[in-house]
Formats: sequence, structure tokens, C-alpha cells
Amino acid sequence: MKSPSSLDELIAALRCLPGVGPRSAQRMAYHLLQRDQPGAARLGAALTRALERIRHCERCNSFAEEAVCELCRSPRRDAALLCVVESPGDLLMIEQARCYPGLYFVLMGALSPLDGVGPKEIHLDRLLKRATDGTVREAILATNFTVEGEATAHYVGELLRERGLKVSRIARGLPVGGELEHVDSGTLAQALMERREVS
Amino acid sequence: MKSPSSLDELIAALRCLPGVGPRSAQRMAYHLLQRDQPGAARLGAALTRALERIRHCERCNSFAEEAVCELCRSPRRDAALLCVVESPGDLLMIEQARCYPGLYFVLMGALSPLDGVGPKEIHLDRLLKRATDGTVREAILATNFTVEGEATAHYVGELLRERGLKVSRIARGLPVGGELEHVDSGTLAQALMERREVS
Repeated sequence: MKSPSSLDELIAALRCLPGVGPRSAQRMAYHLLQRDQPGAARLGAALTRALERIRHCERCNSFAEEAVCELCRSPRRDAALLCVVESPGDLLMIEQARCYPGLYFVLMGALSPLDGVGPKEIHLDRLLKRATDGTVREAILATNFTVEGEATAHYVGELLRERGLKVSRIARGLPVGGELEHVDSGTLAQALMERREVS
Repeated sequence: MKSPSSLDELIAALRCLPGVGPRSAQRMAYHLLQRDQPGAARLGAALTRALERIRHCERCNSFAEEAVCELCRSPRRDAALLCVVESPGDLLMIEQARCYPGLYFVLMGALSPLDGVGPKEIHLDRLLKRATDGTVREAILATNFTVEGEATAHYVGELLRERGLKVSRIARGLPVGGELEHVDSGTLAQALMERREVS
């Protein structure tokens, strides 16, 4: 017995979602058709609308509906600070921490030559142009502490320092509330090496 | 800082998927926009297409694109047997076990008075009409072995027996509290073979 082809197509299409395998996709499709058709219609419309409207901010490269996003247009942000992150999700995390007054640049990825992600794919030309526009004094590298994120921070840092900018990297150490007993040895070693003098 | 509204809407819409909370929804939305825009477009189109095309088969009540689905039209199936299941996913599981030659009726749910699911919501009028059309000799109750599934089997069984049909229940080869969707084909085949007549 064959399933209706539009049902099969929906199941296949749901697998483009991260972490969704064949069984979850089937469960999701049945759920939508059987119990939440309004939700399915809303999701279909939201996808179409987002694809139509969302583009990249000309300044920070994050997702935006306008040419320049609300954050980049804000007069309250410190234009001398530019924080470089891998993704819009990382930007959001930093914003939620409510501790950073400056602006951002979103690479939309990290260097990974084996996956075909080179300097062009992470928009380094645009970052360099943005960082040398005369307003930025310090670039804060906030890429992930993964192999790719570290390589990206190293590479981007070199380029920005060559252009006379002050470059910093967010600190690595134990998380707030972390216990020595439960942290991995790499983090602990790094926390020891990067210890700060208590005055 | 506010996210673009069409992005917020997409994140909210993704939460209609079962098992998707706020964080997963955010991760999915960023993934689609950042790394898989063709996949997002395909998913949007598949949702729209499925909602337009999929309806319920007039005979078995499962998902179909035609008035009567391929399975119900098949001359190779034994029209004397009618297997009653809760959902199209359950039907698919039994088909995959390749041990059942008859036809189906899909209730699209199970009796659950507290959730407002009564006899009307599980299409009992249509099931009774279908089961008494003169071709069906035996109705096999294959609802889940949950409280709702058992109550449904009991209720449906009474009604069908009153109308002179032979009624059987798939064997409890499944663990108590188990659901058809999560069991292996071998166990399911065993449970079908060992069905017992309800006296």
C-alpha cells in the first residue's frame, strides 16, 4: 500500500529540519494533518513569508527585514565596539545576557575548509570593510571554542590586528556556578593558564 | 533588540510540531534561514500542497488524495476482514508487518471524554455503516493497549457485536501501555495472528 504522494513529500520535506529523522518526520506529518491543520497552514505561511522578507543587514550581516537592522541603527549602542559571532543565535544569547553595549558582525558560519567554508563564505571582506570604517576601535572575537571557531578567531584576529585594530577574545574558563569536579580537564587547564591576579 | 517579526513568527509557528519547544524552534528557524533555504521553501510548499490535497478516504477514513484510497480499491484484499485502528500511522505499521490481508477503518483518535473526544469525533457512525455494508464478516479491533484504546475497543466491540458481526481483539502480545507505533513488526504480526474472539 502506497501513502498519498503529497503525504510522502511532506514527510521527506520535514527531514530538512535539524535533528528530525524518518520516524519523527512521519510523526510530525501525521500530527499536523490529524490534529493541527491550522498550525500546519500557519507554518507553511510563516516559512514563505520569512523566505520572502528576511535578508541580511548591510552592516552586521544578521537576519533583518530592513536594509540596516534595528540594533545597528540604535543610537544607544557603542559604535567603537564590534563583537564578531558565528550566528544570529549567538548574537541573541549575548543580547540576552544584557552586558554588552556595542555592535555586532555575524559571520554566518565558521572557517571549515573541509566543508568548503572559506573566508568568502563567512563574509570576511565585508567584516574587514565594516571594521575599518573609522568608528570601530576594538573587535571582540566571540566565535565558539570549537576547532572551527578557534581557527576562525585566530585568522580573523590576525587580519584585524594588521589593520591597526585592538583585538580581544572572550574569556575561557569555568562557567558561572561551575564546580571543578564536574568540568572537563581542557577547560580546567585553560582556566588555570588564563588565571587573573586578584588585587 | 527585537528580532525581525517574520523570524519571530516562523519560530512561533515551528512550535506546532510535536516535541518542539522554544529553543528547538529557534534552532530550526536559524538552520533553515542560514543553511537550508531550499529545504525551507520545499517544506513550505509541501505543507500547502498536503493541506490542499489530503482528505479522508470515504471507506477507511485514512489519509488519501482520492475519494477512495488505493488500499480500499485493491481487489487483492479480503473484504470480509475489517481492522479498526486509531491512526493512519497504526495502519502503516500493520501494513509494514505484511501479515494482514483485509481492509481497515481508521478512527482518527480514541475515545477520551475528558478531552472532548466522544463517539462522534472518532466517526463511529461511519464505522458502523461501513461494517454493516454486507461484505464485512469479522471486525478486528487494533486500537492501542492504553486506557483510551481499550475503552474504545470495548465500546466499538459492543456496538459491532450487537449488529451480528464477529468481533476480535488483537492479542496482548504488546506490553500493557504500549503503542502500535513503537512496536517491532514481529510482535505486531504475532498479535494479529493470535487475535481472540470477543464473546
